[in-house]
Amino acid sequence: MRHSGRAANELRPITLETDVNRYAEGSCLAKFGNTHVLCTATIEESVPGWMKGSGRGWITAEYGMLPRSTQSRMGREAARGKQSGRTQEIQRLIGRSLRAVIDLQGFGERQIRIDCDVLQADGGTRTAAITGSYVALYQAFQLMQEMKAIETIPFVRQVAAISCGIHKGQAIIDLDYEEDSAAETDANFVLTDDGQVVEVQATAEEKPFSRVEFDALMDLAIQGVSELAIAQRNALGLED
Amino acid sequence: MRHSGRAANELRPITLETDVNRYAEGSCLAKFGNTHVLCTATIEESVPGWMKGSGRGWITAEYGMLPRSTQSRMGREAARGKQSGRTQEIQRLIGRSLRAVIDLQGFGERQIRIDCDVLQADGGTRTAAITGSYVALYQAFQLMQEMKAIETIPFVRQVAAISCGIHKGQAIIDLDYEEDSAAETDANFVLTDDGQVVEVQATAEEKPFSRVEFDALMDLAIQGVSELAIAQRNALGLED
Amino acid sequence: MRHSGRAANELRPITLETDVNRYAEGSCLAKFGNTHVLCTATIEESVPGWMKGSGRGWITAEYGMLPRSTQSRMGREAARGKQSGRTQEIQRLIGRSLRAVIDLQGFGERQIRIDCDVLQADGGTRTAAITGSYVALYQAFQLMQEMKAIETIPFVRQVAAISCGIHKGQAIIDLDYEEDSAAETDANFVLTDDGQVVEVQATAEEKPFSRVEFDALMDLAIQGVSELAIAQRNALGLED
Amino acid sequence: MRHSGRAANELRPITLETDVNRYAEGSCLAKFGNTHVLCTATIEESVPGWMKGSGRGWITAEYGMLPRSTQSRMGREAARGKQSGRTQEIQRLIGRSLRAVIDLQGFGERQIRIDCDVLQADGGTRTAAITGSYVALYQAFQLMQEMKAIETIPFVRQVAAISCGIHKGQAIIDLDYEEDSAAETDANFVLTDDGQVVEVQATAEEKPFSRVEFDALMDLAIQGVSELAIAQRNALGLED
Amino acid sequence: MRHSGRAANELRPITLETDVNRYAEGSCLAKFGNTHVLCTATIEESVPGWMKGSGRGWITAEYGMLPRSTQSRMGREAARGKQSGRTQEIQRLIGRSLRAVIDLQGFGERQIRIDCDVLQADGGTRTAAITGSYVALYQAFQLMQEMKAIETIPFVRQVAAISCGIHKGQAIIDLDYEEDSAAETDANFVLTDDGQVVEVQATAEEKPFSRVEFDALMDLAIQGVSELAIAQRNALGLED
Amino acid sequence: MRHSGRAANELRPITLETDVNRYAEGSCLAKFGNTHVLCTATIEESVPGWMKGSGRGWITAEYGMLPRSTQSRMGREAARGKQSGRTQEIQRLIGRSLRAVIDLQGFGERQIRIDCDVLQADGGTRTAAITGSYVALYQAFQLMQEMKAIETIPFVRQVAAISCGIHKGQAIIDLDYEEDSAAETDANFVLTDDGQVVEVQATAEEKPFSRVEFDALMDLAIQGVSELAIAQRNALGLED
Repeated sequence: MRHSGRAANELRPITLETDVNRYAEGSCLAKFGNTHVLCTATIEESVPGWMKGSGRGWITAEYGMLPRSTQSRMGREAARGKQSGRTQEIQRLIGRSLRAVIDLQGFGERQIRIDCDVLQADGGTRTAAITGSYVALYQAFQLMQEMKAIETIPFVRQVAAISCGIHKGQAIIDLDYEEDSAAETDANFVLTDDGQVVEVQATAEEKPFSRVEFDALMDLAIQGVSELAIAQRNALGLED
Repeated sequence: MRHSGRAANELRPITLETDVNRYAEGSCLAKFGNTHVLCTATIEESVPGWMKGSGRGWITAEYGMLPRSTQSRMGREAARGKQSGRTQEIQRLIGRSLRAVIDLQGFGERQIRIDCDVLQADGGTRTAAITGSYVALYQAFQLMQEMKAIETIPFVRQVAAISCGIHKGQAIIDLDYEEDSAAETDANFVLTDDGQVVEVQATAEEKPFSRVEFDALMDLAIQGVSELAIAQRNALGLED
Repeated sequence: MRHSGRAANELRPITLETDVNRYAEGSCLAKFGNTHVLCTATIEESVPGWMKGSGRGWITAEYGMLPRSTQSRMGREAARGKQSGRTQEIQRLIGRSLRAVIDLQGFGERQIRIDCDVLQADGGTRTAAITGSYVALYQAFQLMQEMKAIETIPFVRQVAAISCGIHKGQAIIDLDYEEDSAAETDANFVLTDDGQVVEVQATAEEKPFSRVEFDALMDLAIQGVSELAIAQRNALGLED
Repeated sequence: MRHSGRAANELRPITLETDVNRYAEGSCLAKFGNTHVLCTATIEESVPGWMKGSGRGWITAEYGMLPRSTQSRMGREAARGKQSGRTQEIQRLIGRSLRAVIDLQGFGERQIRIDCDVLQADGGTRTAAITGSYVALYQAFQLMQEMKAIETIPFVRQVAAISCGIHKGQAIIDLDYEEDSAAETDANFVLTDDGQVVEVQATAEEKPFSRVEFDALMDLAIQGVSELAIAQRNALGLED
Repeated sequence: MRHSGRAANELRPITLETDVNRYAEGSCLAKFGNTHVLCTATIEESVPGWMKGSGRGWITAEYGMLPRSTQSRMGREAARGKQSGRTQEIQRLIGRSLRAVIDLQGFGERQIRIDCDVLQADGGTRTAAITGSYVALYQAFQLMQEMKAIETIPFVRQVAAISCGIHKGQAIIDLDYEEDSAAETDANFVLTDDGQVVEVQATAEEKPFSRVEFDALMDLAIQGVSELAIAQRNALGLED
Repeated sequence: MRHSGRAANELRPITLETDVNRYAEGSCLAKFGNTHVLCTATIEESVPGWMKGSGRGWITAEYGMLPRSTQSRMGREAARGKQSGRTQEIQRLIGRSLRAVIDLQGFGERQIRIDCDVLQADGGTRTAAITGSYVALYQAFQLMQEMKAIETIPFVRQVAAISCGIHKGQAIIDLDYEEDSAAETDANFVLTDDGQVVEVQATAEEKPFSRVEFDALMDLAIQGVSELAIAQRNALGLED
C-alpha cells in the first residue's frame, strides 16, 4: 500500500489548465498532485545563427524552480549566478523530447522557447514539465495556424512523460517526493501516446536492478502515458 | 480618462490570496489587476555571520520575474548568470521596507527570507511585492507565535506600497504597464497605514517636475496605501 | 550642534576642479569635504545597437570606489568579479539624472560615458558624483562645440545633487559618514538649479518618518543645490 | 556492413592501460578504438561537509575534453568560464555509476575523486570513462588495502558501460563518431558484469523507436559489458 | 634624440607624494611624468588560512586602472566581471617584488594589502606602482613601529622598478607610452638600491635581441633605480 | 651533486614525439623527464576581428593542467569557472614567444591556436610547452605548405625554452619540481637556437641575487636551448 493510498499503477490527480498567462503564445499549468509546473511557449521569428538558411525551426526549453517550491528553500539560481547541473539536464531533456516528435521543417525558421517554472514541487517535476509543455506548444502552433503562418500543426506524434520506480520492492508509477526519496530505482519515461520510446532514463539509486524490474517499470509507464495523452487532448479540446 | 476607465485615484482590483504554497511558513499571491506576484516567507533558524550574538533577527528579500511574465519574453536571469541592476534594486527595496517597520529584536536570532516571484507583470510589480510580502511575513510571525517561538508579532507598523505618476499631465495612481511606459514621472511610495514615509523613490522620466506635482503624487499614495492596508488586514483575518 | 561645527543647512567645503585628466573629453574632481570623486566624460562616436538610426544620443554612467577609499578597506569589485547592487543602483541613478536634463537629440548619435571613481569616501559619494559629472559632461559638450560637432550645448537645465537626513531629530544637509551612519532618515535629492525635481530617494533607516519631516529635508535640499549650481557655473567659467 | 568492417555486435579494440600517471592513487588510460580517456583516482582524507560524521565515504567524478580531442577544436571550458550542460551530465553519470556498485561504508570517511580527461574523442567517451574509472578506482582501493586503511575492496559489483544505437535500421554496439552522428537512436548502458542495470539512457535522435528496438539494444549491451568486464579484470591482474 | 627631449638615460620627473589618503595606514601617489599611480597599504590583523600558525606575515597586492586613465577608454574590469591576464600578471609581480625584500617573520601574523590604482597612464605603470608601493608599505611599517606592534622595520633591502627598452636601435630608460608602443624590446627591472636583481622581465616585441643589448638595458636600469631609491628615501624623510 | 645525479648543466632526458593526435594539424608530446606536455596546433581560416584586412595572421596559445598532473590534485579550472593568474601568464608567454620568431605576414589571414595541456608536471611545464609548441606549429606550417596554402615556412628563427635557477648556491639547468621548490632564484629563458633573447623572466624567490649570478644562468640557458633546438630539428626530420 502506498502512503497516499494510491494503487501501484495509479497516477496522482492530473490537471492541465490552459490559458494561464495572458502574454504567452501558449501556456499550461500542469499539476501532478502537489507538483505544479507553469509552462509557457514563446514564438520568436528567428532561429539561432547556426540554423539560419536551413529552412528548419527549433524548439528550446528552460527550466527553473521557485526557491520555495520545495520543502526546504533552495538557493535562487539567478542569485548564485549559475544553473545547476540538474537544471541543465532537465531543460535539455525537455527540448529533446519535444523536438523528437515534431517536424522541424513544418513551422519555418522560427524558434519556440518553452519555459517550465516549478511553482511547487512534490516529485516528478520534469515529467509534469514535459507533459504540460506539449500542451503549451500545441497551443502556440494553433495560434500560428490561425494567423496563417503554418498550415498544419507540425507535431508528428503526441508526447508525455511519467516517472516510475521500485519502492519497497514494488514497481510503482508517478512517485511523489516521499516515495522518490526512498526509491531503490528511479526512472523517467518520455513516450508517445502509442507507447513508442522518446527517452528513457533509469538509475539505480542504491543497487543495480534486474532487467525484469526494468520491464515492469516500462509496462507501468506505457499505461500511464496513455492516460496523460488523453488528459492532454482534453485540455486542448481535441476530439479523441 | 484613463484607458482602463479608472479614475485618477482608483486602484486596480486588488486581491491578496494567502496559503498559496504548501511548504512556506507564509505565502501570499498579490494581484494588482494583471500584475501577479507570488510572495513566500521562509524562516531560518540562524542569522548571517555578522549578526551572530547580536540578539537581533534579520529580514532579507529576493525578487525575480518569470521569463514570460512580460509581454516580450525576458532572458532568464539564472541562464544569463546574473541578476540585473533593476532586480537588485527591487529586492534591496523590499528588504529595507519590511525591516523599517519591524522590531528586529522581537523574533530572536532568526533570518526570514522573502521571495517575490512575478508570475505576470503589468506595471507595479515592486509595489505588489511589498504589499504581498507584508502578508506572507505576518503569517510567518503568526506561525512562530503559535509555536511559542515568539510572544507577540514584532511588526511595529503596517506597511504597503503603491506607484503614482504624472501621465498626460495628470497625477494618477497604480499605473499599469501602458501608463507607466508613457508617464512623464514615475514614483513609488512605501508608506505605513497611517501615512508615514518608509521609502520614496521619484524619478523624472523625461523632464524635471515641480514640487507641487510631487505633493499631488504623495496625496494619492497616502490614500491608496490606506486602502491596501485594509486589504492586508482582511487577507490576514485581522479585525479592523 | 553638528560634530563638525557646521550649521544644519551648511554644506561642507565644496570644490569642483576641472581638467584633472589629460585624456578625457571632460573631467572634474568633485570634493564635498573629505569625499573626493573623480568624474570623467568620454565621447564615443556611436550609440548602443538598439538606438542606431534613432537620431538620438545616449549618456551612460559607471561608478566605482577604490578599495581603500573607505575607513575599512572594501573588496575590489573587479577581483570579486561583480559589481554590488549598491554600485549598480548608483550608476543607474547618475545616468538617469543627467539624461533627464539633456536634449538627447541635441548631440547626434553619440554615446557619452561618465566614469565616477571615488578616491576617498566620507558620505555623499553619489551626490558628489552627480554634481561633478554635470561639470565633466558640460566640458565634453563644450569640446564638441569647439570642434563644430554640435552648435549648442544640449543641456536643457542644470542639475546637481545633495543628501539630507534627520539626525538626532534635526534635519541637516550634506551628511558626512559619521552623521550618515547615525541618521534616522537618509534622503538624496537630485534637483535642478531652480528647484525642480529630477529624482528623490528617501529611506527610513530605522523607523518611518512624517511628511512634515520629509518637507523639511526637501527645503534644505533646494537651498543646497542652488549653492552647488553656483559652484558648477564657477568651475565652468560661466557667467552667472 | 559497418564502415569499419565491424560486426553489429563487435566492440572496437579495447585497451585498459594502468599506471599511466606517477602521482595518482589509481590511473587507467582507457582506449575504445580512437577514443582515449585518461582516468585517475585521487584519495582525499575527508568528505564533503554534509557527510561528516556519517561514517560513509563518497565518490565524485569530473570530466573534461582537451580542446583538440575532437575533429574540430572545441572551446576550452576553463577559458569560457563554465562547464557545459553536457559535461555536467556526464560527470554526474560517472559518479552515480560508481557509487551504485560500492559499499560507501567500506572505506571510511574519505572522498575519492575520479578525473576523466578525454585526450582523443571518437564516440563513446562517457562509456570509456566509466569503464576506465572502475579500473583506476579499483587500484586506489588496492593501495588503501596495502596501506592497511581498509581490509577489503568495497566494490560490491563490477561495473562498465557501452553505447548502442540504431544505425541504418540495425542495432549496433560501441558506435564511433561517424556512426553516432548518423544514428537514429542513441543509448548508453551502464551495467554490471552479470547484466544488472545501473543506469540506462536512451534517446530518440530523430523519431521515437519501439520497445522491440530498445530490447535489441539492451541485448547487445549486456554482451558487450561482459567483454569489457573481462578486460577490466585482466588489466587489474585479477583471476577470472 | 627622444621626442620628449630626454637623454637616453634620463628618467621623467619623479614625485612620490605621501599621505594622500586619510584612511590608509600608508599611501603614496607615485608620478613618473604623466603616469600617476595611487598606492595604499592596508594592515589586516590576520593572514590567509594556509599561513595561520606559521609566525609569518604576508604581503599581497592588487592593481587596477581607472577606465579613462588611458588615451582611449578601457572597459571597467568590475563591469566586465573579471580582471585581465595583464592585471593579474602585474599584481602578482608587485606582491612578489615586495616580499623578496622583506623579512616575513618581522611583522607577526598580519597581512598587508597593497592597492595600486592607476589614475593616469603614460607608460611604466607597473614600475611606478612598485616604486610607490615601497613607500606606502614603509609608512605602514612605521605606523606599526609607533604603535609598538613591531620593533624594527622588516625591510631587508630597498626596492624600486624601472622600464628600459630598445627604441630606434637605442637603449633608453623609463619609456613613455609613445616610446613603449614603438619599442623593439621592452624590459622591466625590479632592483634593489645597490643593483641586486629582484625580478627581470624582458620581451622581444618584434624580433629577438642580443645579449649585448640586454646588458645595455640592465646598465641603464641599475642607474635609474639608484635614483628612484633616493627619491623614496626623500619621500620618507629618511637620512641618506 | 643534484638529487637526480645530473650535472649542473645537464638537461633531463628530452623527447619530442610528433603525430600524437589524429585530428590536429600539428601535435607534439614534449617530455622533459617526468614533465609531459601535449601540444597541438589548430589552423583556423580567419583572424580575430581587430586584424581583419591587415594581411597578417596570428598565433595564440592556451595552457591547462590536468587536475592530477601534480603531486597533490589541483582544482579543475573549468569547474572553478576561471583560469588562474598563473595559467594566463603562461599562455600569454607561449603566444608571445612563438609570434616573436614568425613572419606574421607569411601565412595569410589565418589564426593558429596552440593548446598546451600538461598531462604530468615535474617542474618546467612552460618551457616544455614552448619547446613542444614550436614543433607542433612547424608541422602545421608544413601541412599548409603541402596544401599549397603557403610557399615557405614563415618561421624566421627557431625558438625553445629552458629554466635555470640557483639551488644551494649553484647555478643549475632544467630544474625538476623538487629543485624548483627549493631554489633561491628561478628564471625562464626563451631563446633562439643561436642564443638571441626572446623572453627572459627571472625572479628572486627569497632574496635578491647578483648580476654575476644572473649571467651564469644565462650561460647555462644558451647551451641548453642549443641542445633543445637539435632535438626539435630531429623530431621534425630536418637536416641539421
